[in-house]
Amino acid sequence: MIKIGLIGFGYWGPNLARNFSHDSGFELAAICDFSANRLERAQRLHPSARLCTSLDDFFKTDLDAVAIATPVATHFDLARRAIGSGRHVWLEKPMAESVAQAEALIELAQKKQKILLVDHTFVYTGAVRKIKELIDHGRLGDLIYYDSTRVNLGLFQQDVNVIWDLAPHDISIMDFLMPFKKLAVSATGCHYYGNGLVPKSLLTIYMEGNVVGHINVSWVSPVKIRQTLIGGTSRMVLYDDTEPSEKIKIYDKGVDLNVADKDEVYHLKVQYRVGDMYAPRIEDHEALALETQHFADCIRHGKEPLTGGRAGLDVVKVLVASEESLKNRGAPVEL
Amino acid sequence: MIKIGLIGFGYWGPNLARNFSHDSGFELAAICDFSANRLERAQRLHPSARLCTSLDDFFKTDLDAVAIATPVATHFDLARRAIGSGRHVWLEKPMAESVAQAEALIELAQKKQKILLVDHTFVYTGAVRKIKELIDHGRLGDLIYYDSTRVNLGLFQQDVNVIWDLAPHDISIMDFLMPFKKLAVSATGCHYYGNGLVPKSLLTIYMEGNVVGHINVSWVSPVKIRQTLIGGTSRMVLYDDTEPSEKIKIYDKGVDLNVADKDEVYHLKVQYRVGDMYAPRIEDHEALALETQHFADCIRHGKEPLTGGRAGLDVVKVLVASEESLKNRGAPVEL
Amino acid sequence: MIKIGLIGFGYWGPNLARNFSHDSGFELAAICDFSANRLERAQRLHPSARLCTSLDDFFKTDLDAVAIATPVATHFDLARRAIGSGRHVWLEKPMAESVAQAEALIELAQKKQKILLVDHTFVYTGAVRKIKELIDHGRLGDLIYYDSTRVNLGLFQQDVNVIWDLAPHDISIMDFLMPFKKLAVSATGCHYYGNGLVPKSLLTIYMEGNVVGHINVSWVSPVKIRQTLIGGTSRMVLYDDTEPSEKIKIYDKGVDLNVADKDEVYHLKVQYRVGDMYAPRIEDHEALALETQHFADCIRHGKEPLTGGRAGLDVVKVLVASEESLKNRGAPVEL
Amino acid sequence: MIKIGLIGFGYWGPNLARNFSHDSGFELAAICDFSANRLERAQRLHPSARLCTSLDDFFKTDLDAVAIATPVATHFDLARRAIGSGRHVWLEKPMAESVAQAEALIELAQKKQKILLVDHTFVYTGAVRKIKELIDHGRLGDLIYYDSTRVNLGLFQQDVNVIWDLAPHDISIMDFLMPFKKLAVSATGCHYYGNGLVPKSLLTIYMEGNVVGHINVSWVSPVKIRQTLIGGTSRMVLYDDTEPSEKIKIYDKGVDLNVADKDEVYHLKVQYRVGDMYAPRIEDHEALALETQHFADCIRHGKEPLTGGRAGLDVVKVLVASEESLKNRGAPVEL
Repeated sequence: MIKIGLIGFGYWGPNLARNFSHDSGFELAAICDFSANRLERAQRLHPSARLCTSLDDFFKTDLDAVAIATPVATHFDLARRAIGSGRHVWLEKPMAESVAQAEALIELAQKKQKILLVDHTFVYTGAVRKIKELIDHGRLGDLIYYDSTRVNLGLFQQDVNVIWDLAPHDISIMDFLMPFKKLAVSATGCHYYGNGLVPKSLLTIYMEGNVVGHINVSWVSPVKIRQTLIGGTSRMVLYDDTEPSEKIKIYDKGVDLNVADKDEVYHLKVQYRVGDMYAPRIEDHEALALETQHFADCIRHGKEPLTGGRAGLDVVKVLVASEESLKNRGAPVEL
Repeated sequence: MIKIGLIGFGYWGPNLARNFSHDSGFELAAICDFSANRLERAQRLHPSARLCTSLDDFFKTDLDAVAIATPVATHFDLARRAIGSGRHVWLEKPMAESVAQAEALIELAQKKQKILLVDHTFVYTGAVRKIKELIDHGRLGDLIYYDSTRVNLGLFQQDVNVIWDLAPHDISIMDFLMPFKKLAVSATGCHYYGNGLVPKSLLTIYMEGNVVGHINVSWVSPVKIRQTLIGGTSRMVLYDDTEPSEKIKIYDKGVDLNVADKDEVYHLKVQYRVGDMYAPRIEDHEALALETQHFADCIRHGKEPLTGGRAGLDVVKVLVASEESLKNRGAPVEL
Repeated sequence: MIKIGLIGFGYWGPNLARNFSHDSGFELAAICDFSANRLERAQRLHPSARLCTSLDDFFKTDLDAVAIATPVATHFDLARRAIGSGRHVWLEKPMAESVAQAEALIELAQKKQKILLVDHTFVYTGAVRKIKELIDHGRLGDLIYYDSTRVNLGLFQQDVNVIWDLAPHDISIMDFLMPFKKLAVSATGCHYYGNGLVPKSLLTIYMEGNVVGHINVSWVSPVKIRQTLIGGTSRMVLYDDTEPSEKIKIYDKGVDLNVADKDEVYHLKVQYRVGDMYAPRIEDHEALALETQHFADCIRHGKEPLTGGRAGLDVVKVLVASEESLKNRGAPVEL
Repeated sequence: MIKIGLIGFGYWGPNLARNFSHDSGFELAAICDFSANRLERAQRLHPSARLCTSLDDFFKTDLDAVAIATPVATHFDLARRAIGSGRHVWLEKPMAESVAQAEALIELAQKKQKILLVDHTFVYTGAVRKIKELIDHGRLGDLIYYDSTRVNLGLFQQDVNVIWDLAPHDISIMDFLMPFKKLAVSATGCHYYGNGLVPKSLLTIYMEGNVVGHINVSWVSPVKIRQTLIGGTSRMVLYDDTEPSEKIKIYDKGVDLNVADKDEVYHLKVQYRVGDMYAPRIEDHEALALETQHFADCIRHGKEPLTGGRAGLDVVKVLVASEESLKNRGAPVEL
């Protein structure tokens, strides 16, 4: 059993704790939070874990690994301390506040030979894994675009723009499905409310090979939409995470352009293919359960996680560039 | 009866012809098209109209007004000739290829005291008129954003980007609902296919008062989506044109931010309001029928059309700026 | 060209006239209706057809075939006269008011060697033909049930119950897909309004082999539902006619019951299969166009129509039995 | 605190246990189940409850109330013993296997002055309570029909027909919303599988005032449908329990029949009203939490539960009559 300690028992921490408790290869040895209320709840649900209100106390515990589920501003210090003291680290996304921080953590983990997993949970869902399988088997042909809408009402974060809150999901999914070199980012948005925060934003990520990613995130939508279109030259996918079943629909649809003559662009032949649609059965497991097992597996065998420091860094790079572009009304920022 | 002639009997022209025939105040006196096939069809459906294959022939006809339903590249010349020869003009959107062309047509129409209507059809639909009514009655509060997705498979235009094909619908709807000064445009997109055309694009239009418009248009989506979110401080609207009934849903939802102290942005209070939704009954008329009656009314009484030259020019300005921004990966273009 | 005359230019007649006009192998030679308004409209749309207000006049026309699109109460007399005078007949559904009438028409057509087609339009849709193809290829396994909901607001018929108005669609589809011997019918319903008419009804049709058909029809539903479930031992189908695309969804789902021992019914093993769903592409033709071509083909080659007298009679039998059962609160009526 | 014991820790029991544990006014004092596995799970979740494998042992515990969540065949004996030994009873639905059993339990509870609550959970949901409120305020006008579809794949019960499994939900909702005298029941169904069980059934319940209830239940549907239409003369409701939001939609739609003259039924005027739709906000509480508080309240103040013995008996009467009608292919059974 791998002894793990958890820092942060707020919104997401309890899910981690639950998964580290059930047949995961982990023993949840300690939980740290500064809130007495939260610790009380932690105690009821995980009576055998040691509860700590101070980090010093927490880090004194005999732990092989540390999971960090705190606000992003604290990620760097906590992860550095955890790795520095010889623990493997499970780190919430986004990984860090800056590219320099993310790079420093990757370097430290390498030096200390510790596993660093960034919790890009969606990568471990049955739906995303199924799409990856389709792409790897060439079912979609060449990839053209990723276009995602992730909007709902709330929850406003007090300290970050909507980009830092919602876009990491899509950037990490896109990064997993379309591992192309990212070239530039343009981000626009709306900062209506008087507090400087941006509750609604559009990102465009330019990638190698003319592939483009569009991400629409918002805290101010009256309806919840979780809708991703993925375009390939052979087939296209609609991935809707709010569908109880049929989360993925694969359309045998496409456009064939046959330019017979370079000079005759006006006479190019456009042909549409419109065929069947099918919705493959998606395995019905909890993504976090799979991810915790994967973390245990990486620790035991010294493997690089599917969502390691490199994936985490890529997300941070896009976020930081988006923030800069956003300030300049969409002016592109090279990556 | 106002004698009207129609140039162009391709995709949209037959709809105009049908509406100019039925109790519209118009007499459809002539139809001009260079294609024999199309003219044959025109003759079957409109046996009393004079058919012309040459423009000279067409313009010799005794006509009070001319409707122009041809590719955008021909709009300027045809409209200039029509107004110049003393006819009122119904012009398809987008109005012209350049801002200079659009401005010249507006000036000419003023000088000649002729009506110039640009066919922004959606403005005349029951749904858009209902939303306008809600806004004018203050039901949405202050407007925050317009966010529209208008995607489907095909129809590729051979000579223009998707922006010129699909975005005029949304720009004209937005312009009608939110008549705020437009400040700048950022446009990004995907030009995967080797022909230089852009089949998928994202526009952001910055307006006065921190209001933002987002428009997502695509010819390469496996599914047809016509979905517009309109955010106000009091209520929000979901307008889905593919819904057979309930095209408009009004949500009594919103976010209230109370910043007690400027220095305490981290402690601002965010409150969500989640109330009822209602879907008002939409009047079930054909938009074109209303629009042709409006055109007749403007001609008879010398009124400025709801969608006149100014509205057409605004759309052209955004399109031209988008095209430029698109070439620079989203770099904003001032309007 | 087969010369055809049409009686009845009300709700459905114009659709027939349109299809008999376009490349159908027919020449629409005469149209008969007692309403001057309707005849005026007929003249505008079909200027070459002879217009008649009297049946005597109509039947004097040189006609090879007669299409009858009038209220059901008139079907028997009109069809008898048409066949009796040596014409092939296209007859709207339901075919007749009674089993005796339907049988008499079948007998007369046989004697006169004339084609009698009953217009069960849905049988000619791409969706229903696709389901038939799936069943014929054994994709659904043994059929278990047909369960259809066909409800909306209006249109109240003044002279017949909702069963006679809406159920013929489902009975004819079911009859085509599941040509099993029908054993008995139970029908229940609601006759709230004080006029004796039944605006909402449920039919159950017991068939050979324990196959059951359920049909829910209503004129008093706030929403329009056109939803049919078809259960087989291997696969199940959801057919939704209101879907713009994906009208048919085929589910690789089912239940396997393995009763190891007759005495151990309490310990039978129930296993669920939950696999992929797919939505085959449906050919996008107008059902009536196909049906008119089929009618021409039957006339030319003396073939029995897909929806001939026998199919029409089966529908009438179920309707008549339903009406009787309805009066006795669902008491079953043998067929 | 009311000391309560729970018999049965299978599918539903754990939900009851959870609700009796949290601020409900109850102390969960004992749990009885014959399965060691289940008791082990009970112990982990409710460490302070006494665990019993024998009923004798269980009934010896100091208990004010007993909750019974076991198969229906055991309800009568267990409830009789519980009430007989002076305990209040929470009884799962359906209340008993026969009308005689249900009546005996009601009589016993009255004699012993104990509370008998039948767990018709849906009556305590925000959605059903909202519909009740609308009806009580006259918003729907006179009620005409209740029409519910409750179908999905599985879970086959081994010992009862689908009617006993799924229909109690709808009968109890209908009974709550439309408390009219029930006159007769007709039930039809499909018993394809060779084991005598009926996995799919249609019920019609005739009520006073020409009001009709239709209930469609199935274990063999490829898709999950939970859709109820409720028709009134003024408004109609669509209640869809699978909708994440907008569970209730109220349509200002209807039919007005004006029969000016009894003899002129053929000329009655039918008028359709088609107005707005609205979806009221539904309170988002767990129905069971409300129901357990209600049970505590009834015990403390000697109040008759909203879903007491009378409501339970009504459900049993309909189920028993349905079972009989089902054997006779829909022949109506008087209530």
